[in-house]
Amino acid sequence: MPLLVVGSVAIDNVHTPKETRENLLGGSATHFSYAASFFTSVRLVGVVGADWPQEHTDLLDSRGIDTTGLQTVPDGKTFTWTGRYHDNMNDRDTLDVQLNVFGEFDPTLPESYTKAKYVFLANGVPAVQMKVLSQVPGRRLAVADTMDLWINTAREDLDQLLGQLDGLVLNDGEAKLLTGTDNLVLAGHKVREMGPKFVVIKKGEHGAMFFSEHETYVLPAYPTEDVIDPTGAGDSFAGGMMGYLAEQDNFEPKTLKTAMAYGTLVASFNVEGFGLERMKKITRKDIDRRMEDYRKMLSF
Amino acid sequence: MPLLVVGSVAIDNVHTPKETRENLLGGSATHFSYAASFFTSVRLVGVVGADWPQEHTDLLDSRGIDTTGLQTVPDGKTFTWTGRYHDNMNDRDTLDVQLNVFGEFDPTLPESYTKAKYVFLANGVPAVQMKVLSQVPGRRLAVADTMDLWINTAREDLDQLLGQLDGLVLNDGEAKLLTGTDNLVLAGHKVREMGPKFVVIKKGEHGAMFFSEHETYVLPAYPTEDVIDPTGAGDSFAGGMMGYLAEQDNFEPKTLKTAMAYGTLVASFNVEGFGLERMKKITRKDIDRRMEDYRKMLSF
Repeated sequence: MPLLVVGSVAIDNVHTPKETRENLLGGSATHFSYAASFFTSVRLVGVVGADWPQEHTDLLDSRGIDTTGLQTVPDGKTFTWTGRYHDNMNDRDTLDVQLNVFGEFDPTLPESYTKAKYVFLANGVPAVQMKVLSQVPGRRLAVADTMDLWINTAREDLDQLLGQLDGLVLNDGEAKLLTGTDNLVLAGHKVREMGPKFVVIKKGEHGAMFFSEHETYVLPAYPTEDVIDPTGAGDSFAGGMMGYLAEQDNFEPKTLKTAMAYGTLVASFNVEGFGLERMKKITRKDIDRRMEDYRKMLSF
Repeated sequence: MPLLVVGSVAIDNVHTPKETRENLLGGSATHFSYAASFFTSVRLVGVVGADWPQEHTDLLDSRGIDTTGLQTVPDGKTFTWTGRYHDNMNDRDTLDVQLNVFGEFDPTLPESYTKAKYVFLANGVPAVQMKVLSQVPGRRLAVADTMDLWINTAREDLDQLLGQLDGLVLNDGEAKLLTGTDNLVLAGHKVREMGPKFVVIKKGEHGAMFFSEHETYVLPAYPTEDVIDPTGAGDSFAGGMMGYLAEQDNFEPKTLKTAMAYGTLVASFNVEGFGLERMKKITRKDIDRRMEDYRKMLSF
Protein backbone atom coordinates (compact mmCIF):
# COMPACT_ATOMS: atom_id res chain seq x y z
CA MET A 1 0.00 0.00 0.00
CA PRO A 2 1.33 3.49 -0.73
CA LEU A 3 2.42 5.49 2.26
CA LEU A 4 1.88 9.24 2.56
CA VAL A 5 4.37 11.36 4.48
CA VAL A 6 4.19 15.06 5.19
CA GLY A 7 7.13 16.86 6.74
CA SER A 8 10.27 18.87 6.32
CA VAL A 9 12.66 18.70 3.39
CA ALA A 10 15.89 20.42 4.26
CA ILE A 11 19.50 21.18 3.66
CA ASP A 12 21.62 20.12 6.64
CA ASN A 13 25.04 21.25 7.77
CA VAL A 14 26.44 18.72 10.20
CA HIS A 15 29.43 19.07 12.50
CA THR A 16 30.69 15.94 14.23
CA PRO A 17 33.80 15.64 16.41
CA LYS A 18 35.58 14.07 13.42
CA GLU A 19 34.23 15.88 10.39
CA THR A 20 32.05 18.71 9.08
CA ARG A 21 29.76 18.24 6.10
CA GLU A 22 27.68 20.95 4.44
CA ASN A 23 24.71 20.98 2.06
CA LEU A 24 23.52 17.50 2.91
CA LEU A 25 20.09 16.36 1.79
CA GLY A 26 18.10 16.29 5.03
CA GLY A 27 14.71 16.87 6.64
CA SER A 28 12.28 14.58 8.42
CA ALA A 29 10.19 13.71 5.37
CA THR A 30 13.32 12.99 3.34
CA HIS A 31 14.87 10.56 5.81
CA PHE A 32 11.46 8.99 6.38
CA SER A 33 10.72 8.56 2.67
CA TYR A 34 14.09 7.10 1.83
CA ALA A 35 13.84 4.58 4.68
CA ALA A 36 10.26 3.63 3.77
CA SER A 37 11.15 3.22 0.09
CA PHE A 38 12.82 -0.12 0.88
CA PHE A 39 9.38 -1.47 1.74
CA THR A 40 6.65 0.36 -0.16
CA SER A 41 5.89 3.21 -2.54
CA VAL A 42 5.94 6.59 -0.84
CA ARG A 43 4.09 9.83 -1.57
CA LEU A 44 5.99 12.78 -0.26
CA VAL A 45 4.55 16.16 0.68
CA GLY A 46 6.99 18.96 1.43
CA VAL A 47 8.20 22.35 0.33
CA VAL A 48 11.51 23.68 -0.97
CA GLY A 49 12.85 26.96 -2.33
CA ALA A 50 14.42 28.06 -5.59
CA ASP A 51 17.85 27.00 -4.28
CA TRP A 52 16.82 23.32 -4.20
CA PRO A 53 19.14 21.18 -6.29
CA GLN A 54 17.24 19.08 -8.83
CA GLU A 55 19.58 16.17 -8.14
CA HIS A 56 17.96 15.71 -4.71
CA THR A 57 14.53 15.32 -6.30
CA ASP A 58 16.07 12.98 -8.86
CA LEU A 59 17.46 10.83 -6.06
CA LEU A 60 14.05 10.55 -4.39
CA ASP A 61 12.41 9.78 -7.74
CA SER A 62 14.97 7.06 -8.36
CA ARG A 63 13.73 5.34 -5.20
CA GLY A 64 10.17 5.30 -6.47
CA ILE A 65 9.18 8.12 -4.13
CA ASP A 66 6.36 10.16 -5.64
CA THR A 67 7.45 13.81 -5.46
CA THR A 68 4.32 15.28 -7.04
CA GLY A 69 3.60 16.76 -3.60
CA LEU A 70 7.01 18.41 -3.29
CA GLN A 71 6.12 22.05 -3.85
CA THR A 72 8.71 24.62 -4.93
CA VAL A 73 8.34 28.26 -3.84
CA PRO A 74 10.11 30.14 -6.65
CA ASP A 75 11.06 33.19 -4.60
CA GLY A 76 11.82 31.26 -1.43
CA LYS A 77 14.76 29.46 0.18
CA THR A 78 14.83 25.89 1.45
CA PHE A 79 14.73 25.12 5.17
CA THR A 80 18.28 24.72 6.52
CA TRP A 81 19.49 23.20 9.76
CA THR A 82 23.00 23.38 11.18
CA GLY A 83 24.00 21.32 14.19
CA ARG A 84 26.98 20.09 16.12
CA TYR A 85 27.21 16.67 17.76
CA HIS A 86 28.94 16.20 21.09
CA ASP A 87 31.69 13.64 21.60
CA ASN A 88 29.10 11.05 22.65
CA MET A 89 27.40 11.41 19.21
CA ASN A 90 24.05 11.34 20.98
CA ASP A 91 23.62 14.90 22.27
CA ARG A 92 23.73 17.80 19.87
CA ASP A 93 23.43 21.57 19.74
CA THR A 94 21.44 23.29 17.04
CA LEU A 95 23.71 26.07 15.79
CA ASP A 96 21.33 27.59 13.28
CA VAL A 97 17.81 27.08 11.92
CA GLN A 98 16.47 28.92 8.88
CA LEU A 99 12.85 27.80 8.47
CA ASN A 100 12.48 29.77 5.23
CA VAL A 101 9.67 28.33 3.05
CA PHE A 102 8.95 25.63 5.65
CA GLY A 103 7.82 28.35 8.07
CA GLU A 104 4.71 28.97 5.94
CA PHE A 105 4.17 25.32 5.05
CA ASP A 106 0.44 24.61 4.87
CA PRO A 107 0.04 21.85 2.32
CA THR A 108 -2.90 21.05 0.11
CA LEU A 109 -2.49 17.44 -0.94
CA PRO A 110 -2.47 16.53 -4.62
CA GLU A 111 -5.74 14.78 -5.50
CA SER A 112 -3.87 11.55 -6.14
CA TYR A 113 -2.64 11.53 -2.52
CA THR A 114 -5.96 11.98 -0.73
CA LYS A 115 -6.96 8.33 -0.89
CA ALA A 116 -3.86 7.23 1.06
CA LYS A 117 -4.46 4.53 3.64
CA TYR A 118 -1.17 4.85 5.52
CA VAL A 119 -0.23 8.33 6.70
CA PHE A 120 2.76 9.65 8.60
CA LEU A 121 2.89 13.21 9.86
CA ALA A 122 6.54 13.94 10.47
CA ASN A 123 7.31 16.53 13.13
CA GLY A 124 5.50 19.81 12.38
CA VAL A 125 3.01 22.36 13.72
CA PRO A 126 0.14 20.29 15.24
CA ALA A 127 -2.51 22.54 13.62
CA VAL A 128 -0.98 21.87 10.20
CA GLN A 129 -0.68 18.15 10.98
CA MET A 130 -4.44 18.15 11.70
CA LYS A 131 -5.24 19.98 8.47
CA VAL A 132 -3.34 17.30 6.57
CA LEU A 133 -5.23 14.55 8.36
CA SER A 134 -8.54 16.13 7.37
CA GLN A 135 -7.53 15.72 3.74
CA VAL A 136 -7.18 11.92 4.03
CA PRO A 137 -10.54 10.95 5.53
CA GLY A 138 -10.31 7.35 4.27
CA ARG A 139 -7.01 6.63 5.99
CA ARG A 140 -6.54 3.32 7.76
CA LEU A 141 -3.54 4.21 9.93
CA ALA A 142 -2.34 7.69 10.96
CA VAL A 143 0.85 8.06 12.92
CA ALA A 144 2.63 11.30 13.87
CA ASP A 145 5.89 12.51 15.33
CA THR A 146 6.16 15.61 17.49
CA MET A 147 8.79 17.59 19.40
CA ASP A 148 9.43 19.61 22.55
CA LEU A 149 8.70 22.90 20.75
CA TRP A 150 5.04 21.94 20.16
CA ILE A 151 4.68 20.37 23.59
CA ASN A 152 5.74 23.71 25.05
CA THR A 153 4.05 26.15 22.67
CA ALA A 154 1.05 24.40 21.04
CA ARG A 155 -0.16 22.04 23.70
CA GLU A 156 -3.87 22.55 23.08
CA ASP A 157 -3.57 21.74 19.37
CA LEU A 158 -1.28 18.84 20.16
CA ASP A 159 -3.80 17.39 22.61
CA GLN A 160 -6.47 17.64 19.94
CA LEU A 161 -4.20 15.96 17.39
CA LEU A 162 -3.46 13.11 19.83
CA GLY A 163 -7.16 12.28 19.85
CA GLN A 164 -7.11 11.78 16.07
CA LEU A 165 -4.07 9.53 15.84
CA ASP A 166 -3.61 5.79 15.74
CA GLY A 167 -0.01 6.08 16.78
CA LEU A 168 2.49 8.60 18.11
CA VAL A 169 6.26 8.35 17.79
CA LEU A 170 8.38 10.58 20.01
CA ASN A 171 11.71 10.49 21.77
CA ASP A 172 12.39 9.82 25.44
CA GLY A 173 12.93 13.45 26.44
CA GLU A 174 9.72 14.48 24.71
CA ALA A 175 7.74 11.70 26.41
CA LYS A 176 9.01 12.85 29.79
CA LEU A 177 8.15 16.47 28.97
CA LEU A 178 4.69 15.62 27.67
CA THR A 179 3.75 13.57 30.75
CA GLY A 180 5.82 15.11 33.51
CA THR A 181 7.11 11.68 34.50
CA ASP A 182 10.67 10.34 34.40
CA ASN A 183 9.84 6.64 34.26
CA LEU A 184 9.53 5.83 30.56
CA VAL A 185 7.19 2.88 31.08
CA LEU A 186 4.75 5.09 32.96
CA ALA A 187 5.29 7.92 30.46
CA GLY A 188 4.52 5.67 27.48
CA HIS A 189 1.20 4.57 28.92
CA LYS A 190 0.31 8.12 29.96
CA VAL A 191 0.83 9.33 26.39
CA ARG A 192 -1.34 6.46 25.17
CA GLU A 193 -4.10 7.59 27.50
CA MET A 194 -4.00 10.96 25.74
CA GLY A 195 -5.43 9.39 22.60
CA PRO A 196 -3.18 7.30 20.33
CA LYS A 197 -3.82 3.56 20.26
CA PHE A 198 -0.10 2.96 20.37
CA VAL A 199 2.96 4.95 21.35
CA VAL A 200 6.58 4.44 20.38
CA ILE A 201 9.31 6.04 22.47
CA LYS A 202 12.63 6.32 20.65
CA LYS A 203 15.69 6.11 22.90
CA GLY A 204 18.43 6.66 20.32
CA GLU A 205 21.38 4.34 20.96
CA HIS A 206 19.26 2.53 23.58
CA GLY A 207 16.53 1.38 21.19
CA ALA A 208 12.78 1.91 21.26
CA MET A 209 9.80 1.11 23.46
CA PHE A 210 6.29 0.19 22.38
CA PHE A 211 3.06 0.73 24.28
CA SER A 212 -0.47 -0.36 23.45
CA GLU A 213 -3.36 -1.27 25.71
CA HIS A 214 -2.18 -4.85 26.08
CA GLU A 215 1.51 -4.63 25.28
CA THR A 216 4.63 -3.01 26.66
CA TYR A 217 7.98 -3.91 25.20
CA VAL A 218 11.47 -2.68 24.44
CA LEU A 219 13.70 -3.52 21.51
CA PRO A 220 17.37 -2.57 21.78
CA ALA A 221 19.21 -0.67 19.07
CA TYR A 222 21.40 -2.71 16.76
CA PRO A 223 24.91 -2.30 18.18
CA THR A 224 27.12 -0.43 15.73
CA GLU A 225 30.52 1.10 16.20
CA ASP A 226 30.28 3.17 13.02
CA VAL A 227 28.19 6.09 14.19
CA ILE A 228 29.09 8.74 11.64
CA ASP A 229 26.01 11.03 11.70
CA PRO A 230 22.90 10.37 13.80
CA THR A 231 20.87 13.05 11.96
CA GLY A 232 17.58 11.59 10.76
CA ALA A 233 17.90 8.37 12.77
CA GLY A 234 14.48 8.88 14.36
CA ASP A 235 12.88 9.67 11.00
CA SER A 236 14.46 6.62 9.35
CA PHE A 237 13.22 4.55 12.26
CA ALA A 238 9.69 5.80 11.62
CA GLY A 239 10.14 5.30 7.87
CA GLY A 240 11.26 1.70 8.26
CA MET A 241 8.43 1.01 10.70
CA MET A 242 5.65 2.63 8.65
CA GLY A 243 7.07 1.31 5.38
CA TYR A 244 6.85 -2.25 6.66
CA LEU A 245 3.29 -1.75 7.98
CA ALA A 246 2.19 -0.32 4.62
CA GLU A 247 3.92 -3.19 2.81
CA GLN A 248 2.16 -5.77 4.97
CA ASP A 249 -1.05 -3.74 4.87
CA ASN A 250 -1.94 -4.59 8.45
CA PHE A 251 -1.04 -3.42 11.91
CA GLU A 252 -1.68 -6.47 14.03
CA PRO A 253 0.48 -6.67 17.18
CA LYS A 254 2.84 -9.16 15.53
CA THR A 255 3.28 -6.96 12.44
CA LEU A 256 3.83 -3.91 14.62
CA LYS A 257 6.66 -5.60 16.50
CA THR A 258 8.40 -6.69 13.32
CA ALA A 259 7.90 -3.14 12.04
CA MET A 260 9.60 -1.79 15.17
CA ALA A 261 12.52 -4.10 14.46
CA TYR A 262 12.75 -2.97 10.82
CA GLY A 263 12.66 0.67 11.98
CA THR A 264 15.51 -0.09 14.38
CA LEU A 265 17.63 -1.67 11.66
CA VAL A 266 17.02 0.96 8.99
CA ALA A 267 17.99 3.60 11.56
CA SER A 268 21.17 1.65 12.34
CA PHE A 269 22.19 1.96 8.67
CA ASN A 270 21.19 5.63 8.51
CA VAL A 271 23.67 6.62 11.25
CA GLU A 272 26.56 4.87 9.48
CA GLY A 273 27.03 7.74 7.04
CA PHE A 274 26.41 11.47 6.64
CA GLY A 275 22.92 12.41 5.45
CA LEU A 276 21.66 9.60 3.22
CA GLU A 277 25.11 8.44 2.09
CA ARG A 278 25.02 5.04 3.76
CA MET A 279 21.38 4.49 2.83
CA LYS A 280 22.20 5.04 -0.81
CA LYS A 281 24.56 2.08 -0.70
CA ILE A 282 22.24 -0.52 0.78
CA THR A 283 19.42 -2.70 -0.53
CA ARG A 284 16.53 -4.48 1.12
CA LYS A 285 18.77 -7.54 1.19
CA ASP A 286 21.25 -5.77 3.48
CA ILE A 287 18.42 -4.85 5.82
CA ASP A 288 17.10 -8.41 5.84
CA ARG A 289 20.57 -9.78 6.49
CA ARG A 290 20.91 -7.47 9.48
CA MET A 291 17.44 -8.62 10.57
CA GLU A 292 18.74 -12.19 10.71
CA ASP A 293 21.61 -11.07 12.94
CA TYR A 294 19.23 -9.05 15.08
CA ARG A 295 16.84 -11.97 15.58
CA LYS A 296 19.78 -14.16 16.48
CA MET A 297 21.02 -11.53 18.92
CA LEU A 298 17.67 -11.55 20.72
CA SER A 299 17.15 -15.28 20.95
CA PHE A 300 18.62 -17.51 23.61
CA MET B 1 28.48 -25.69 41.49
CA PRO B 2 29.07 -23.41 44.48
CA LEU B 3 29.83 -19.81 43.68
CA LEU B 4 32.29 -17.71 45.66
CA VAL B 5 31.74 -13.99 46.04
CA VAL B 6 34.00 -11.48 47.74
CA GLY B 7 32.80 -7.92 48.28
CA SER B 8 31.19 -5.36 50.50
CA VAL B 9 28.53 -6.02 53.10
CA ALA B 10 26.94 -2.77 54.18
CA ILE B 11 24.23 -0.80 55.85
CA ASP B 12 22.54 1.54 53.35
CA ASN B 13 20.53 4.69 53.90
CA VAL B 14 18.55 5.46 50.76
CA HIS B 15 16.74 8.67 49.86
CA THR B 16 14.40 8.56 46.86
CA PRO B 17 12.12 11.38 45.71
CA LYS B 18 9.21 9.54 47.35
CA GLU B 19 10.66 8.00 50.50
CA THR B 20 13.67 7.68 52.77
CA ARG B 21 14.71 4.37 54.27
CA GLU B 22 17.50 3.82 56.76
CA ASN B 23 19.50 0.84 57.99
CA LEU B 24 18.83 -1.30 54.94
CA LEU B 25 20.83 -4.45 54.40
CA GLY B 26 23.11 -3.56 51.48
CA GLY B 27 26.52 -4.00 49.92
CA SER B 28 27.69 -5.51 46.66
CA ALA B 29 28.35 -9.01 48.00
CA THR B 30 24.97 -9.04 49.76
CA HIS B 31 22.92 -8.11 46.67
CA PHE B 32 25.03 -10.47 44.56
CA SER B 33 24.64 -13.41 46.97
CA TYR B 34 20.93 -13.00 47.38
CA ALA B 35 20.39 -12.84 43.63
CA ALA B 36 22.67 -15.84 42.99
CA SER B 37 20.98 -17.88 45.72
CA PHE B 38 18.00 -18.48 43.40
CA PHE B 39 20.30 -20.55 41.22
CA THR B 40 23.14 -22.09 43.21
CA SER B 41 24.76 -22.29 46.62
CA VAL B 42 26.86 -19.24 47.43
CA ARG B 43 29.93 -18.78 49.60
CA LEU B 44 30.17 -15.23 50.86
CA VAL B 45 33.34 -13.44 51.93
CA GLY B 46 32.93 -10.07 53.59
CA VAL B 47 33.49 -8.13 56.76
CA VAL B 48 31.18 -6.41 59.24
CA GLY B 49 31.53 -4.62 62.58
CA ALA B 50 30.15 -5.19 66.05
CA ASP B 51 27.02 -3.20 65.11
CA TRP B 52 25.97 -5.83 62.55
CA PRO B 53 22.49 -7.17 63.30
CA GLN B 54 22.45 -10.97 63.56
CA GLU B 55 19.12 -11.01 61.69
CA HIS B 56 20.93 -10.02 58.49
CA THR B 57 23.23 -13.03 58.74
CA ASP B 58 20.21 -15.18 59.55
CA LEU B 59 18.49 -13.95 56.39
CA LEU B 60 21.50 -14.88 54.24
CA ASP B 61 21.77 -18.27 55.98
CA SER B 62 18.10 -18.88 55.29
CA ARG B 63 18.87 -18.58 51.55
CA GLY B 64 21.52 -21.28 51.80
CA ILE B 65 24.29 -18.69 51.53
CA ASP B 66 27.38 -19.92 53.36
CA THR B 67 28.44 -17.09 55.70
CA THR B 68 31.49 -18.87 57.16
CA GLY B 69 33.54 -16.24 55.35
CA LEU B 70 31.66 -13.27 56.82
CA GLN B 71 34.18 -11.99 59.31
CA THR B 72 33.19 -9.79 62.27
CA VAL B 73 35.63 -7.19 63.62
CA PRO B 74 34.59 -6.88 67.27
CA ASP B 75 35.83 -3.33 67.80
CA GLY B 76 34.81 -2.07 64.34
CA LYS B 77 31.78 -0.63 62.61
CA THR B 78 30.10 -1.89 59.45
CA PHE B 79 30.56 -0.08 56.14
CA THR B 80 27.68 2.38 55.60
CA TRP B 81 26.54 4.14 52.43
CA THR B 82 24.05 6.98 52.20
CA GLY B 83 22.75 8.16 48.85
CA ARG B 84 20.04 10.21 47.26
CA TYR B 85 18.39 9.35 43.93
CA HIS B 86 17.39 12.05 41.48
CA ASP B 87 13.86 12.30 40.07
CA ASN B 88 14.87 10.08 37.15
CA MET B 89 15.76 7.26 39.62
CA ASN B 90 18.86 6.58 37.56
CA ASP B 91 21.33 9.21 38.69
CA ARG B 92 22.28 9.48 42.32
CA ASP B 93 24.49 11.44 44.68
CA THR B 94 26.48 9.73 47.38
CA LEU B 95 25.80 11.77 50.51
CA ASP B 96 28.05 9.84 52.85
CA VAL B 97 30.40 6.85 52.84
CA GLN B 98 31.86 5.33 56.01
CA LEU B 99 34.16 2.53 54.89
CA ASN B 100 34.85 1.50 58.49
CA VAL B 101 35.98 -2.17 58.69
CA PHE B 102 35.68 -2.53 54.88
CA GLY B 103 38.55 -0.03 54.51
CA GLU B 104 40.99 -2.62 55.87
CA PHE B 105 39.35 -5.59 54.17
CA ASP B 106 42.01 -8.11 53.12
CA PRO B 107 40.37 -11.48 53.26
CA THR B 108 41.92 -14.86 53.85
CA LEU B 109 39.47 -17.39 52.48
CA PRO B 110 38.23 -20.20 54.72
CA GLU B 111 39.85 -23.48 53.68
CA SER B 112 36.47 -24.78 52.51
CA TYR B 113 36.19 -21.91 50.00
CA THR B 114 39.54 -22.26 48.26
CA LYS B 115 38.38 -25.03 45.93
CA ALA B 116 35.68 -22.82 44.40
CA LYS B 117 35.28 -23.14 40.63
CA TYR B 118 33.13 -20.05 40.06
CA VAL B 119 34.42 -16.80 41.53
CA PHE B 120 33.02 -13.28 41.51
CA LEU B 121 35.06 -10.37 42.79
CA ALA B 122 32.56 -7.63 43.53
CA ASN B 123 33.81 -4.08 43.26
CA GLY B 124 36.88 -3.57 45.49
CA VAL B 125 40.54 -2.57 45.55
CA PRO B 126 42.14 -4.33 42.54
CA ALA B 127 45.16 -5.42 44.60
CA VAL B 128 42.85 -7.13 47.09
CA GLN B 129 40.82 -8.67 44.27
CA MET B 130 44.06 -10.19 42.95
CA LYS B 131 45.02 -11.52 46.37
CA VAL B 132 41.66 -13.27 46.53
CA LEU B 133 42.16 -14.77 43.08
CA SER B 134 45.52 -16.19 44.12
CA GLN B 135 43.72 -18.14 46.85
CA VAL B 136 41.50 -20.01 44.36
CA PRO B 137 44.07 -21.42 41.92
CA GLY B 138 41.73 -24.18 40.70
CA ARG B 139 38.97 -21.80 39.60
CA ARG B 140 37.21 -22.39 36.31
CA LEU B 141 35.66 -18.94 35.85
CA ALA B 142 36.71 -15.65 37.48
CA VAL B 143 34.66 -12.53 36.87
CA ALA B 144 35.08 -9.13 38.52
CA ASP B 145 33.32 -5.80 38.83
CA THR B 146 35.17 -2.50 39.16
CA MET B 147 34.44 1.21 39.49
CA ASP B 148 35.60 4.69 38.47
CA LEU B 149 37.58 5.11 41.71
CA TRP B 150 39.96 2.26 40.81
CA ILE B 151 40.15 3.27 37.17
CA ASN B 152 41.32 6.68 38.35
CA THR B 153 43.53 5.73 41.31
CA ALA B 154 44.74 2.14 40.87
CA ARG B 155 45.06 1.77 37.13
CA GLU B 156 48.25 -0.29 37.17
CA ASP B 157 46.80 -2.89 39.54
CA LEU B 158 43.56 -2.88 37.61
CA ASP B 159 45.39 -3.55 34.33
CA GLN B 160 47.17 -6.46 35.97
CA LEU B 161 43.89 -7.81 37.32
CA LEU B 162 42.28 -7.58 33.88
CA GLY B 163 44.90 -9.99 32.57
CA GLN B 164 43.84 -12.60 35.14
CA LEU B 165 40.08 -12.45 34.55
CA ASP B 166 37.73 -14.46 32.41
CA GLY B 167 35.10 -11.74 32.54
CA LEU B 168 34.66 -8.14 33.62
CA VAL B 169 31.34 -6.50 34.48
CA LEU B 170 31.21 -2.71 34.59
CA ASN B 171 28.77 0.08 33.90
CA ASP B 172 28.62 2.31 30.82
CA GLY B 173 30.28 5.32 32.44
CA GLU B 174 33.13 3.16 33.72
CA ALA B 175 33.64 1.55 30.31
CA LYS B 176 33.91 5.00 28.70
CA LEU B 177 36.34 6.16 31.39
CA LEU B 178 38.48 3.03 31.15
CA THR B 179 38.81 3.24 27.35
CA GLY B 180 38.47 6.96 26.65
CA THR B 181 35.81 6.24 24.04
CA ASP B 182 32.15 7.26 24.02
CA ASN B 183 30.87 4.57 21.66
CA LEU B 184 29.94 1.65 23.91
CA VAL B 185 30.43 -0.98 21.20
CA LEU B 186 33.98 0.18 20.65
CA ALA B 187 34.51 0.58 24.40
CA GLY B 188 33.35 -2.98 25.09
CA HIS B 189 35.83 -4.47 22.64
CA LYS B 190 38.62 -2.22 23.88
CA VAL B 191 38.09 -3.46 27.44
CA ARG B 192 38.13 -7.03 26.14
CA GLU B 193 41.48 -6.36 24.50
CA MET B 194 42.80 -5.43 27.95
CA GLY B 195 42.52 -9.07 29.06
CA PRO B 196 39.11 -10.51 29.94
CA LYS B 197 37.65 -13.09 27.55
CA PHE B 198 34.29 -11.41 27.86
CA VAL B 199 33.01 -8.03 28.99
CA VAL B 200 29.55 -7.03 30.16
CA ILE B 201 28.57 -3.35 30.12
CA LYS B 202 25.60 -2.58 32.36
CA LYS B 203 23.43 0.30 31.15
CA GLY B 204 20.91 0.46 34.02
CA GLU B 205 17.39 1.05 32.69
CA HIS B 206 18.73 0.51 29.16
CA GLY B 207 19.89 -3.08 29.68
CA ALA B 208 23.28 -4.70 29.19
CA MET B 209 25.78 -5.36 26.41
CA PHE B 210 27.97 -8.42 25.94
CA PHE B 211 31.31 -8.63 24.17
CA SER B 212 33.49 -11.62 23.39
CA GLU B 213 35.85 -12.29 20.53
CA HIS B 214 33.07 -13.53 18.28
CA GLU B 215 29.98 -11.96 19.79
CA THR B 216 28.53 -8.51 20.39
CA TYR B 217 25.00 -8.19 21.63
CA VAL B 218 22.62 -6.08 23.68
CA LEU B 219 19.73 -7.22 25.81
CA PRO B 220 17.24 -4.58 26.96
CA ALA B 221 16.17 -4.18 30.57
CA TYR B 222 12.81 -5.64 31.52
CA PRO B 223 10.43 -2.68 31.42
CA THR B 224 9.07 -1.95 34.88
CA GLU B 225 7.17 1.05 36.17
CA ASP B 226 7.77 0.13 39.80
CA VAL B 227 11.28 1.46 40.30
CA ILE B 228 11.41 1.91 44.08
CA ASP B 229 15.15 1.66 44.80
CA PRO B 230 17.82 0.95 42.15
CA THR B 231 20.53 0.30 44.78
CA GLY B 232 22.22 -3.02 44.12
CA ALA B 233 20.68 -3.50 40.68
CA GLY B 234 24.10 -4.02 39.09
CA ASP B 235 25.16 -6.47 41.79
CA SER B 236 21.91 -8.45 41.48
CA PHE B 237 22.45 -8.50 37.73
CA ALA B 238 25.89 -10.02 38.28
CA GLY B 239 24.49 -12.39 40.90
CA GLY B 240 21.76 -13.67 38.60
CA MET B 241 24.23 -14.05 35.75
CA MET B 242 26.95 -15.84 37.73
CA GLY B 243 24.41 -17.88 39.69
CA TYR B 244 22.99 -19.28 36.46
CA LEU B 245 26.46 -20.03 35.05
CA ALA B 246 27.44 -21.86 38.24
CA GLU B 247 24.14 -23.76 38.22
CA GLN B 248 24.68 -24.86 34.61
CA ASP B 249 28.36 -25.41 35.28
CA ASN B 250 29.39 -24.17 31.86
CA PHE B 251 29.96 -20.88 30.14
CA GLU B 252 29.31 -21.67 26.51
CA PRO B 253 28.08 -18.69 24.44
CA LYS B 254 24.47 -19.93 24.65
CA THR B 255 24.65 -20.34 28.43
CA LEU B 256 26.24 -16.91 28.78
CA LYS B 257 23.41 -15.25 26.89
CA THR B 258 20.75 -16.94 28.99
CA ALA B 259 22.76 -15.93 32.06
CA MET B 260 22.71 -12.30 30.87
CA ALA B 261 18.93 -12.56 30.58
CA TYR B 262 18.60 -14.02 34.08
CA GLY B 263 20.81 -11.24 35.44
CA THR B 264 18.56 -8.70 33.74
CA LEU B 265 15.42 -10.18 35.25
CA VAL B 266 16.76 -10.62 38.78
CA ALA B 267 17.87 -6.97 38.67
CA SER B 268 14.38 -5.95 37.53
CA PHE B 269 12.95 -7.51 40.70
CA ASN B 270 15.66 -6.00 42.88
CA VAL B 271 14.69 -2.42 41.95
CA GLU B 272 11.03 -3.03 42.79
CA GLY B 273 11.64 -2.62 46.52
CA PHE B 274 14.05 -1.00 49.00
CA GLY B 275 17.16 -3.03 49.77
CA LEU B 276 16.25 -6.71 49.46
CA GLU B 277 12.57 -6.27 50.30
CA ARG B 278 11.20 -7.29 46.92
CA MET B 279 13.74 -10.07 46.52
CA LYS B 280 12.61 -11.59 49.83
CA LYS B 281 9.12 -12.02 48.39
CA ILE B 282 9.99 -13.83 45.17
CA THR B 283 10.89 -17.38 44.24
CA ARG B 284 12.68 -18.94 41.29
CA LYS B 285 9.23 -19.49 39.80
CA ASP B 286 8.58 -15.74 39.67
CA ILE B 287 11.89 -15.24 37.88
CA ASP B 288 11.10 -18.01 35.41
CA ARG B 289 7.65 -16.58 34.76
CA ARG B 290 9.21 -13.20 33.98
CA MET B 291 11.69 -15.01 31.75
CA GLU B 292 8.78 -16.33 29.70
CA ASP B 293 7.45 -12.77 29.29
CA TYR B 294 10.90 -11.53 28.42
CA ARG B 295 11.46 -14.18 25.75
CA LYS B 296 8.04 -13.35 24.31
CA MET B 297 8.92 -9.66 24.33
CA LEU B 298 12.06 -10.32 22.30
CA SER B 299 10.57 -12.60 19.69
CA PHE B 300 8.74 -11.48 16.58
